[in-house]
Amino acid sequence: MPYLDKLHRAQQANHSWVCLGLDPQPDRLPVAALKWDEPLLPFNRAIIDATADLVCAYKPNLGFYLQWGAAGVMALERTIAYIPDHIPVILDAKIGDIGHTQAAWGRGLFDVWNVDAVTVNPYVGEEAVRPLLAGRPDKAVYVLARTSNPGAQRFQGDLTAGDGLAAEVLRAAAEWAGPGDGHCGFVVGATYPAELAAARALAPAANFLIPGVGAQGGDLAAAVAHGPDAIAGPVINAGRSVLYASAGLDFAEATRAAALQMRDAINELRAH
Amino acid sequence: MPYLDKLHRAQQANHSWVCLGLDPQPDRLPVAALKWDEPLLPFNRAIIDATADLVCAYKPNLGFYLQWGAAGVMALERTIAYIPDHIPVILDAKIGDIGHTQAAWGRGLFDVWNVDAVTVNPYVGEEAVRPLLAGRPDKAVYVLARTSNPGAQRFQGDLTAGDGLAAEVLRAAAEWAGPGDGHCGFVVGATYPAELAAARALAPAANFLIPGVGAQGGDLAAAVAHGPDAIAGPVINAGRSVLYASAGLDFAEATRAAALQMRDAINELRAH
Repeated sequence: MPYLDKLHRAQQANHSWVCLGLDPQPDRLPVAALKWDEPLLPFNRAIIDATADLVCAYKPNLGFYLQWGAAGVMALERTIAYIPDHIPVILDAKIGDIGHTQAAWGRGLFDVWNVDAVTVNPYVGEEAVRPLLAGRPDKAVYVLARTSNPGAQRFQGDLTAGDGLAAEVLRAAAEWAGPGDGHCGFVVGATYPAELAAARALAPAANFLIPGVGAQGGDLAAAVAHGPDAIAGPVINAGRSVLYASAGLDFAEATRAAALQMRDAINELRAH
Repeated sequence: MPYLDKLHRAQQANHSWVCLGLDPQPDRLPVAALKWDEPLLPFNRAIIDATADLVCAYKPNLGFYLQWGAAGVMALERTIAYIPDHIPVILDAKIGDIGHTQAAWGRGLFDVWNVDAVTVNPYVGEEAVRPLLAGRPDKAVYVLARTSNPGAQRFQGDLTAGDGLAAEVLRAAAEWAGPGDGHCGFVVGATYPAELAAARALAPAANFLIPGVGAQGGDLAAAVAHGPDAIAGPVINAGRSVLYASAGLDFAEATRAAALQMRDAINELRAH
């Protein structure tokens, strides 16, 4: 099934545009998870069990697992396998290598781990995207366009001006997926509402992965207004404010409540 | 010991500016290595044993290990531990995340795996560099400036013109390492000799990691002419043409001979 169709089905089934970032942090893991010698997998399982009917995707970030070395990557591999098949998995690693190296990443992430989408850094140009999408109609990449951090503008420019690097990326990358290839979406931070509108105009058919709401203070209304493409809604990432809603014994229930609140806030905005 | 001093000592001890890329490819591994059920670690050990007196650094690329999933990352972890302490390890993953995510990468790569340097993609701006270098005087990053692939110019521009993205990165990133921080070096491909000279002018104190010689046809003379900084020589990466010099039983000896040939070719150029 093409990626956008799978995403759309998950969004319909759970009536949700919420994507939950599965990013374990040693200083934020709840005490109830730290009782296990290797807390990552049991923590993730509890979170997934508590939210699988509320989200449209899960987004684990490789860096948060690799901080424990290969053991953390093993927990990530098993976490991905645990996620229900009908919920898309977006592997966030912002990979941006060239040619045969990027092809190796693609074999690992798409063919061995069978994730549905990966995030890609476009600095090196088209060689970062083509080896991942070629011949994989069921997969997708999310190319970084405008990131949500304060220092992003230095190189990425202002999307509303239309002539910076981020605008160039949005124009160029749409050409890099041919017929029979996977889908090329983009990462556009919610911290810059006017730029979300500009990004949608530059890439009308692309799915958007939107980080920066919640702890980073992004604009949920702009994400709802400019996020949807013709097939699916945007993937709005819920980060720390949802994953670490409680550090107590009720951590999974608290994450469920926070995810539900975010889902309903989005759906309320969609209804208007 | 500051990174540049460690690198310089290894360069002096082995009279070498050659860095060997440890990038296992399933379709290139020699038959003699494929006899093992898990060939990565024994292959790497044989290569390291055959070249440890000929190189100034090893550069494994995370993507080539992750193509086997977590099992490949386990082999990488053990490969890094096997490399002799006095030879710097440059972990090539072109990481480019922000803030606390990049800090997590730093904990894994620098603190758990204890590599000496990592490659960094600067698309997101200074948040990709500061969390890695802050308070780690013995470590280094190599920030992508000009990569060696054909599509690189689209976003990176022409360094000799001095006003493109790569020039902007060379100017900006040098400011991102403060006193007591690690070293900020750059990746500058050897496939564009005139740009190497321009990069050296833009970042006079930075160490350069230079890929693109060998299989990619880069210019070794330009790397020798414009590569050195005030403390150390450049790190000139030897890739597939050296690592896969033979697919037969003599694979380690053939890699040794190819590394020796490249080392001597560089030293011949240095003497003139």
